[in-house]
Amino acid sequence: MPGKTAKRLTKPLLRVLAGETLSRQPWWLMRQAGRYLPEYRALREKAGDFITLCLTPEMAAEVTLQPIRRFGMDAAILFSDILLVPRALGQRLSFENDGPKLEPLSENEKLRPLDLAMLAPVGEAVARVRAALPGETTLIGFAGAPWTVATYMVEGGTSRDFHRVKTYCYRDPAGFAALIETISEATLAFLSLQIEAGVETVQLFDSWAGALSAAGFERWVVGPTKQLVAGLKQRFPRVPVIGFPRGAGLNYERYAVATGVDAVGLDTSVPVNLARERLQARLTVQGNLDPVLLRVGGPPMNQAVAELRQALGAGPYIFNLGHGVLPDTPPEHVAELARLLSN
Amino acid sequence: MPGKTAKRLTKPLLRVLAGETLSRQPWWLMRQAGRYLPEYRALREKAGDFITLCLTPEMAAEVTLQPIRRFGMDAAILFSDILLVPRALGQRLSFENDGPKLEPLSENEKLRPLDLAMLAPVGEAVARVRAALPGETTLIGFAGAPWTVATYMVEGGTSRDFHRVKTYCYRDPAGFAALIETISEATLAFLSLQIEAGVETVQLFDSWAGALSAAGFERWVVGPTKQLVAGLKQRFPRVPVIGFPRGAGLNYERYAVATGVDAVGLDTSVPVNLARERLQARLTVQGNLDPVLLRVGGPPMNQAVAELRQALGAGPYIFNLGHGVLPDTPPEHVAELARLLSN
Repeated sequence: MPGKTAKRLTKPLLRVLAGETLSRQPWWLMRQAGRYLPEYRALREKAGDFITLCLTPEMAAEVTLQPIRRFGMDAAILFSDILLVPRALGQRLSFENDGPKLEPLSENEKLRPLDLAMLAPVGEAVARVRAALPGETTLIGFAGAPWTVATYMVEGGTSRDFHRVKTYCYRDPAGFAALIETISEATLAFLSLQIEAGVETVQLFDSWAGALSAAGFERWVVGPTKQLVAGLKQRFPRVPVIGFPRGAGLNYERYAVATGVDAVGLDTSVPVNLARERLQARLTVQGNLDPVLLRVGGPPMNQAVAELRQALGAGPYIFNLGHGVLPDTPPEHVAELARLLSN
Repeated sequence: MPGKTAKRLTKPLLRVLAGETLSRQPWWLMRQAGRYLPEYRALREKAGDFITLCLTPEMAAEVTLQPIRRFGMDAAILFSDILLVPRALGQRLSFENDGPKLEPLSENEKLRPLDLAMLAPVGEAVARVRAALPGETTLIGFAGAPWTVATYMVEGGTSRDFHRVKTYCYRDPAGFAALIETISEATLAFLSLQIEAGVETVQLFDSWAGALSAAGFERWVVGPTKQLVAGLKQRFPRVPVIGFPRGAGLNYERYAVATGVDAVGLDTSVPVNLARERLQARLTVQGNLDPVLLRVGGPPMNQAVAELRQALGAGPYIFNLGHGVLPDTPPEHVAELARLLSN
């Protein structure tokens, strides 16, 4: 990164994403806008439907801003959903109590061309949030990584063993590669829309990266992520990309070396000493407090936070959880965390 | 291991567990006795109930032997269930369509002393299988590792985020340690019963090892496993122990170094090149074909099998899957695998 650009960065999160080490590490939380907040639950009820909440710009913006007002994280993450992409490719989507439901895609079923207009409200939400955010606060956009989005599209929801989507990969790798390519192009368009509207960095959620064999990880996680990052860098060379290959385990190092991401999100299971030696030596790391510790609060949380900062604070580090905030987390624990991280 | 003992070993699986490298690698499959076999489904229906099937010695023995007759694996694994241990500690257990159900344990709830008589039929099944097995075939016993058994006991079944059991760990580590100790003692008794009845090696299934932070992994997986292995070695110094910390990811190396197991089972996600360098250099490895490839069969399976044997065959290696056989796997694919592995 040229010195001139680096000098212009003032927001803590962007400075760390550019490789700086800060003594007060910036922080945000995955799913920081969500059910643990009473003001979120009120708006969610008013919206009636989860998709309505995502696609009504004033509501999505409000929900995005709620945790920032309360806790002053260093970054807001746009309130949205990774499955808006398959929806804009024509797949029917609904949210039920036990998670998202899609009409499962058959092998080689044709998708319609991306309807970018269906995603336009997301851009409007971004613009609203950006206008309302404090000057020090970074706005993060996001999308699902192609593999993870494909799992939902083929399985029709979450899965225990991913046997449908993996059978597709193995039986018809060329057909599956075409699906991944379609998702990748749509994702590039979706993230470009977000960046043009004002997000300053993007995170790729690869929540089911851990379901693959190492060969599958190489082909369906590393390859498409690398291509997507290259596409983003070509259009937006100054926008950093955070990759979160949850459950990657022993494949984390390969992901960090090969994909071109600027930062890697560590899931809860990653040992911080290994993360320091094998990952942070190459790129910025983010994570990985156990969300259960945020739910529990008190001395166990405080001690784990101190240990994390001790282990990773000597290099470029963004404090976060290792997975999303649990819905029954007391907001007071997040307030306590904010105090701990304020110096 | 003293030379005299090593010389007496003739069964391929036991030779590899003692550290030998064989040109024809021994194999067995996790959940090789199970729903993909029509003869299993017939007996399961006759038994009516899953627990009856486990605890009726002639039935459990028959189900254990079914895959050996068809496919001639190098090892039979006793048909049983890891949750027989909580049941023998007084917890009510049933099996429904979506998996096991236990009455969830409250924090610091007292368990009754282990009723070893409830597990006696397992010993009878072992004796029957041992008497019927071909001379070259090893009989494997097993139990759940204490952490994994504790997750079922506290959550009441399988879980998505393990927040109940992890909240217990964090809020009351001393109380949780007492629960783990109770489970460990019961597990040692259960495995001793199996060994005395005739199993020649045991596998510890730690299916939910990946749900923990590295600190939790150290305390609740590494510590109790080490203690259990030491207890087994004291009583049965010649019985090798296989550990399977599924999802351990970057914690695999620590597990291999610190627990004292003779062999480690690799889950599907583990890259074989790293397994060779970091794990097989220290101990025997076992795994890790994607069960979906066994379901798919044909050239994709054949190629992956050849690659696995190529990558790990130069050291002590037991061929297996990275997780259990999927219920809708065609038995012909297992027959094809047996042919591939016959030389």
